[in-house]
Amino acid sequence: MNTPHEDPRPSAPAQESWNPQRPGPMPFHRYRPFQERVRVPAEDRRWPSARIERAPLWVPVDLRDGNQALAEPMDTPRKRRFFDLLTGMGFKEIEVGYPSASRTDFDFVRHLVTEGAVPGDVTPVVFTPARPELIDTTFDAIEGMERAVVHLYIATSPVWREVVLGRDREEVRRTVREAATRMARRADRLRGRVRFQFSPETFNLTEPDFVLELCDELTALWDASPDRPVTHNLPATVEIATPNVYADQIEYVHRHLARRDSVVLSVHPHNDRGTGVACAELAVLAGAQRVEGCLFGNGERTGNVDLVTLALNLFAQGVDPRVDLSDIDAVRETVEHCNRLPVHPRHPYAGELVHTAFSGTHQDAIDKGFAAHAKRAAELGVPEREAPWAVPYLPVDPADLGRSYEAVIRVNSQSGKGGMAYLLRTGHGVDLPARMRPDFSRVVQRATDDSGREATARELYALFEATYLVPGREGAVRLVSWSASRDASGAHRFVCALEREGRRTGHEGTGNGPLAAFADALAGAGITVEVRNFAEHAAGPGADAEAVAYAECRVDGVTAWGAGRDTSVPAASVHAVLSAVNRAGARWTARTREATEA
Amino acid sequence: MNTPHEDPRPSAPAQESWNPQRPGPMPFHRYRPFQERVRVPAEDRRWPSARIERAPLWVPVDLRDGNQALAEPMDTPRKRRFFDLLTGMGFKEIEVGYPSASRTDFDFVRHLVTEGAVPGDVTPVVFTPARPELIDTTFDAIEGMERAVVHLYIATSPVWREVVLGRDREEVRRTVREAATRMARRADRLRGRVRFQFSPETFNLTEPDFVLELCDELTALWDASPDRPVTHNLPATVEIATPNVYADQIEYVHRHLARRDSVVLSVHPHNDRGTGVACAELAVLAGAQRVEGCLFGNGERTGNVDLVTLALNLFAQGVDPRVDLSDIDAVRETVEHCNRLPVHPRHPYAGELVHTAFSGTHQDAIDKGFAAHAKRAAELGVPEREAPWAVPYLPVDPADLGRSYEAVIRVNSQSGKGGMAYLLRTGHGVDLPARMRPDFSRVVQRATDDSGREATARELYALFEATYLVPGREGAVRLVSWSASRDASGAHRFVCALEREGRRTGHEGTGNGPLAAFADALAGAGITVEVRNFAEHAAGPGADAEAVAYAECRVDGVTAWGAGRDTSVPAASVHAVLSAVNRAGARWTARTREATEA
Repeated sequence: MNTPHEDPRPSAPAQESWNPQRPGPMPFHRYRPFQERVRVPAEDRRWPSARIERAPLWVPVDLRDGNQALAEPMDTPRKRRFFDLLTGMGFKEIEVGYPSASRTDFDFVRHLVTEGAVPGDVTPVVFTPARPELIDTTFDAIEGMERAVVHLYIATSPVWREVVLGRDREEVRRTVREAATRMARRADRLRGRVRFQFSPETFNLTEPDFVLELCDELTALWDASPDRPVTHNLPATVEIATPNVYADQIEYVHRHLARRDSVVLSVHPHNDRGTGVACAELAVLAGAQRVEGCLFGNGERTGNVDLVTLALNLFAQGVDPRVDLSDIDAVRETVEHCNRLPVHPRHPYAGELVHTAFSGTHQDAIDKGFAAHAKRAAELGVPEREAPWAVPYLPVDPADLGRSYEAVIRVNSQSGKGGMAYLLRTGHGVDLPARMRPDFSRVVQRATDDSGREATARELYALFEATYLVPGREGAVRLVSWSASRDASGAHRFVCALEREGRRTGHEGTGNGPLAAFADALAGAGITVEVRNFAEHAAGPGADAEAVAYAECRVDGVTAWGAGRDTSVPAASVHAVLSAVNRAGARWTARTREATEA
Repeated sequence: MNTPHEDPRPSAPAQESWNPQRPGPMPFHRYRPFQERVRVPAEDRRWPSARIERAPLWVPVDLRDGNQALAEPMDTPRKRRFFDLLTGMGFKEIEVGYPSASRTDFDFVRHLVTEGAVPGDVTPVVFTPARPELIDTTFDAIEGMERAVVHLYIATSPVWREVVLGRDREEVRRTVREAATRMARRADRLRGRVRFQFSPETFNLTEPDFVLELCDELTALWDASPDRPVTHNLPATVEIATPNVYADQIEYVHRHLARRDSVVLSVHPHNDRGTGVACAELAVLAGAQRVEGCLFGNGERTGNVDLVTLALNLFAQGVDPRVDLSDIDAVRETVEHCNRLPVHPRHPYAGELVHTAFSGTHQDAIDKGFAAHAKRAAELGVPEREAPWAVPYLPVDPADLGRSYEAVIRVNSQSGKGGMAYLLRTGHGVDLPARMRPDFSRVVQRATDDSGREATARELYALFEATYLVPGREGAVRLVSWSASRDASGAHRFVCALEREGRRTGHEGTGNGPLAAFADALAGAGITVEVRNFAEHAAGPGADAEAVAYAECRVDGVTAWGAGRDTSVPAASVHAVLSAVNRAGARWTARTREATEA
């Protein structure tokens, strides 16, 4: 056996030049490292090379462990609603209460029995301490249940034994044996409808040999077999070390348990160090087959491990999570209602902000990723919703969780071209040409820098409209009336009345297309226009959709972008050019004014 | 080299009898496992045997990465407040912005320079993409700064190269080289005041040899040395695998980097899989020396890794976190103000509920733990605040984070004797005798079961008062007046006037103590009282503190607990006995009535 957890690297120098951190004021000397508190065996560990290819059995403990951590515990209607949510999602083993702890808990278990609320393929679990009268209450509670797991717990680590229980190892062992015997006797009358579970609470602080001693004795006492296995559940009651240490602890038990094929090895991680999810995952790599946790990580203090995150982590790796999260917001709303606790906006998969990008580079990447995804789907000949997913910054397709793409891109002063282009396209049918985006992006950034706030798709469109579609600025050229025609030779002719600064004049021009003819007519009015870029598209599906046109023009030496929107395609085009003329004119005027003032 | 990430365990059977989970509706086939997306080298890994004995360099990126994920980015006053918080906490390297991304970002960096806001031992970091004009803007922003790190990033993984950048490996490499050369040239004028940082964004999806190629080339190009090292920062931009995989990736780079002593190896984990903290910790085990993150885990989508949790995880292991979290709520309030995002009630160390126990077993354990802690402190002759900490369910002493013990124990229907005893003692000076606790606990549980709500310390005391201290129930015995005396022989004499159901009578009794004499007097009134348990204590410090007395009496065959509170010790005792008499009488009456009605 290796000496566990020794640093194989040469010891680092006292303080490197690049690390100016100084000793801080925190009284760290009051705490001991985990390796002084528990022996962790780590003989040639295998878990770091394993991988998870199948979902473990998920067992939600929201109605017991989660509930006992709420300022206002759930009443029966709330518990029932939670229970129905869990069965509806596909959970098959569910801890439903601690019947000897309170009348509310007892009553809910009775409610499940008398109301016939438990589906035929679901097994409820009930929790009991190792005390005869409480074991009896527990069995009274499940009277009449089709099947159940009775879950015995006792704290087993040295501190708990000494400070809390006031018992030594041998006394704890005797207590467990007596409780287990009583459970077996009570279960006998129920003819095989009951299975057993044991939790050495504070497992992660308990001597590994003591854990094995207790578990193996119960496996024998309860006469576990492969078709009626016992569940040994190993809690990280309070997280004490980096998650690799928990994995070492689980692998040790996994490899040394007696009658291994008659044991379901289960874990129950908490989250005091913020590593509950990692503990569960590394424990599964190390041999755990069953994971207890809560939806969105409710539970005592920092909570139990979050089963939703665990399931979706598998999903994102191409593994069937075996639980239905196709409408994650409905799940979240029910859980928030029952627990009266919020899910954080940054909570993995379920938070309000987790599919949202504000920053320009992210938005640009997502925008390109969506386009690449559409192309890939087309190449494969499958709908986009079924094509393999690989969009930057979106580890899963929000649609697989029942979410729309609306929240994916949101625009503020941190955003760039990609984001506002995406919102204009998806929200308002305006697909800005790539070469025009920097122009509008500057306008947006000025606005968001000034406001300091987010700009919604609606606000962006209003900004687009005010910038390009509404003429009426000082010195603007107005098109009073116009007509365009094409003669038999293919030449285009443009006749129009223009108004500028109150003065109305008539003009006409010719060219090889209507815009060339319009430019020629403008030349007659003394405005030299060169159309340098032009694009046009329908703003939506169908023959009657509006058209949006974009034109970059060089006008008397000044370059500007313009846009037009109209039910008629030619009208949209003409307005786009006119918009560019007026925007260039405004710039030109401003520039002249500056030069004059200087 | 081992074949990486292959499962050494025998393959599991299709579905075991104990696991009734069925295939679910989620389209998991759209996703690929990480090992099909990136090659992870794992030659005889060392990190699982390492341990963390020293804090890495913490680098908060709240003002850049965190800020760009906010719906409403911080304005300069908010950024400044955050910056001052960070320097006050002891952070020595702080990413302050992305000056070329927006005017707000540029202006804030200028603000730091012009206002002289950067303490002498703090180095700001500024972030720039690999584009010449943006690099120039970045250097313009830091003009006049005492010292700075200029941080170059580019996305390097295949999907990003193809979909986002449209460049191959060689083109990305050239872009990086050109950018780095420009940075070196601009930095030259600043005579050593600038250091360099490089981030291959999406590192965890990038070919390991490409990462080394890019990093090593920059180490050489920037001519890094041990006293002026380059920072290579390896982001888990989007989490893709269990954290052990990230550790393997970091260890590979750690062991193969050129000029290792001239490189500060840094990590930048995000939290898409809820394993950001674990990734950072395992990465430090694997050789990382510097960790970028945000306070309480703000950042794009699910956020950056939380530096507060990381620091306090070290603290709880007896390692100096090198950052000041002795008033965690003040830190939290500032961060909530600046980010306009809440910290979740179950957030490790900082959440409102994380030092709270509602469940009876936890409360009982904590109560005993506090007592053991006080005893240990006394034995060591040190104040409790300095004694080694080992209280069940409380991984750190809330006082070390500037919190009171008030929130530690809260009572509802899930709670037991320990909790309510703790609250009565700490909140109201009432230290219930252990044998009395079950009696009052039943009263509390009935009340909380009925209300479904939490009971505060004040409510518990009101319940205690109504139950024991206020007599006045139907058929109660009232003590109108009394006197007690002791004669020269040591015999006690008790003379009193009692009132029951409107009838007043006089009595006297003798005994070897005042209570015995009182019992004797009661016997004269036809009430047989045997005092079975008695306890008494002062309700607070000082000679004028009130006394609280508790008595368990057997009264005409019925046993009951009573309590009295008075400035006089004898009065408190007498009232305790009288309270027991009346409570027994009420029970006796109720029992008789039930029997009569049945």
